[in-house]
Amino acid sequence: MSDLEVGYDVPAAIGMAEDQIQTPCLIIDLDAFERNVATMRSRMEELGVRLRVHGKMHKSADVARYQIDHGGACGVCCQKVSEAEAFVRGGIMDVMVSNQVRDPLKIDRLARLPLLGARALVCCDDLANVAELSKAAQTHSTQVEVLVEIDCGAGRCGVMPDAVVPIAKAIADAPGLKFAGIQAYHGSAQHIKTHAERKAAIDKTIAMAQTSADLIAQAGLDCEIIGGAGTGSYMFEGASGLYNELQCGSYAFMDADYGRIEGANGHATLEFEHALFLLTSIMSTTIPGQAVCDAGLKSQSVDSGLPIVFGREDIAYRGASDEHGVLGDPDNTLGINQRIRLIPGHCDPTVNCHDWLVGVRSGVVETLWPVTARGKGY
Amino acid sequence: MSDLEVGYDVPAAIGMAEDQIQTPCLIIDLDAFERNVATMRSRMEELGVRLRVHGKMHKSADVARYQIDHGGACGVCCQKVSEAEAFVRGGIMDVMVSNQVRDPLKIDRLARLPLLGARALVCCDDLANVAELSKAAQTHSTQVEVLVEIDCGAGRCGVMPDAVVPIAKAIADAPGLKFAGIQAYHGSAQHIKTHAERKAAIDKTIAMAQTSADLIAQAGLDCEIIGGAGTGSYMFEGASGLYNELQCGSYAFMDADYGRIEGANGHATLEFEHALFLLTSIMSTTIPGQAVCDAGLKSQSVDSGLPIVFGREDIAYRGASDEHGVLGDPDNTLGINQRIRLIPGHCDPTVNCHDWLVGVRSGVVETLWPVTARGKGY
Repeated sequence: MSDLEVGYDVPAAIGMAEDQIQTPCLIIDLDAFERNVATMRSRMEELGVRLRVHGKMHKSADVARYQIDHGGACGVCCQKVSEAEAFVRGGIMDVMVSNQVRDPLKIDRLARLPLLGARALVCCDDLANVAELSKAAQTHSTQVEVLVEIDCGAGRCGVMPDAVVPIAKAIADAPGLKFAGIQAYHGSAQHIKTHAERKAAIDKTIAMAQTSADLIAQAGLDCEIIGGAGTGSYMFEGASGLYNELQCGSYAFMDADYGRIEGANGHATLEFEHALFLLTSIMSTTIPGQAVCDAGLKSQSVDSGLPIVFGREDIAYRGASDEHGVLGDPDNTLGINQRIRLIPGHCDPTVNCHDWLVGVRSGVVETLWPVTARGKGY
Repeated sequence: MSDLEVGYDVPAAIGMAEDQIQTPCLIIDLDAFERNVATMRSRMEELGVRLRVHGKMHKSADVARYQIDHGGACGVCCQKVSEAEAFVRGGIMDVMVSNQVRDPLKIDRLARLPLLGARALVCCDDLANVAELSKAAQTHSTQVEVLVEIDCGAGRCGVMPDAVVPIAKAIADAPGLKFAGIQAYHGSAQHIKTHAERKAAIDKTIAMAQTSADLIAQAGLDCEIIGGAGTGSYMFEGASGLYNELQCGSYAFMDADYGRIEGANGHATLEFEHALFLLTSIMSTTIPGQAVCDAGLKSQSVDSGLPIVFGREDIAYRGASDEHGVLGDPDNTLGINQRIRLIPGHCDPTVNCHDWLVGVRSGVVETLWPVTARGKGY
């Protein structure tokens, strides 16, 4: 990386102090990240299920490698074929596209992933798609493993349980394909604030997955994978006795939205720490009681609310424009160039705004991880 | 670009039909774009003012080049030093950072831009910053042109008119710097829906700029540039007899938010056309009355509202998750892989999600413009 210029190509150099990092940029508190990975590994071991980390959150082959090597992950999932390619090219060889793939060129690219040595899995909710996938796998003499996605509460993609069997059978019968099981993920339920209400929503999801699994078993097929779950609900699917592969993503970094949901056993929050921060600098303080920082809409997604200022309850991020954030600072404590850590409202689309994750430990830059699949949305 | 793979590195190839473009991606209707550029050129000529197009919107050296060569623009403005560097490296040699620059490394990089042959301008709202900029310009034996930013309604950066003169004098006296004038831009006023209310807000902005200009003239200094304005307000600043350099950006592409504001003389909208579209494909239609497309939060910013489906009043974009959009399609008209053009809610942060702008004319890909300064947020 010797020809990368700090401040143009990259936001930092290894060994640099945190207050010298060029902002706005994403930093990872490596200690907190490693603890999050270890905690989730323990939970998966206790639950007796596999962890297939969701790479759509971090889009980083380096982070995925750490989760596989140290966090017990069996592989990654992601949402797009180009994202899957970025992971495979980055050395991650067990990749599920937990989404539908319908464009002919995308299907072709998916079917070629095994030629690079990768296990390729994908979801399906339409009989016509089975034939498309089969044709591409045959063209390249590869195998694509296919899960039937059920719509278990999201109201988005997927089919109802009573429509699962014909698709599963078609996959099982299709040359070049392997029927791999069912995908039953309820995304919006992850963010329900109270533990009890979240459990109630996921109980319905689990019931639909169970119905689907029963119908598939009656049809004489075997589900190698019953997959789904996320950071907000893994404890429910994991304890179901049904799910065997959980797809948690945000736990590794966390964000403000996940920081607001209740944990189990009366805990106010989940047991994961904020490890991802949007580092920003103060650039103007002309108006008493406020300060302007250099992180606005282009360095974060505000779809799930504004960021929270980390470790400073006296300061609030009040509004974002394209390149500015306005902070309420009633006691005028902030000075020009001072760095502030923001907890992004929503980690996934915020990471996708950045090319680099700057790993920091004890206030010093230890590593620079490229966001390998940033912008890989095809 | 022969080694770039369609579907991984780039979303399209030249000559490809629009319905083969890999989605989600941004497309430019080249006819509409060229008409927008020509219309604004005419308006600027009628008003007798310079146009310094805002490059923060498109972040593309190719678009800026077209605006200079065909649209009468004298140069660009942008918001970040790394963005300015991307424009200069892309051949745009008159660049204003219409923002404060306070980090030492950023100031140094800014002061080095003239070494690449560029005219470099920047804004300032703090006496201490004058000394910082001067020191860097002296270090590199360059000249940086500096405007005093006034806070003319945004309540963000900038100073009140009564504080302008000391900063202007300091700039004029500082080695390596040239006092260039005043920056008086009111961003949020651009989006006020009614023409009359927008005019009333900008009239106050103009009055503050006039007070500032008068004080500067009384101090014996000359404002080469009195700059500001945007797509929503340029007609007011342009007719003021005071402003001489307008900084319109969104007019070239437009977005849903600007599409909702009133034009002059009783026109329901501004006279610019939607030229920027987020092209998306239908990927699932399992639920009657809706369709799911492949453009969600990672391919657009929803800070100014959800996108609008172009040319289809029967279809509404109802909700975005990370990689999905849910469309209401009451008559079930949408088919798998069908392409839909979305008008993004807010063009600037949406363009920043993408690496490429695909120029389309008569349904065929004519050009691929890299988003040169995408992610250049430092």
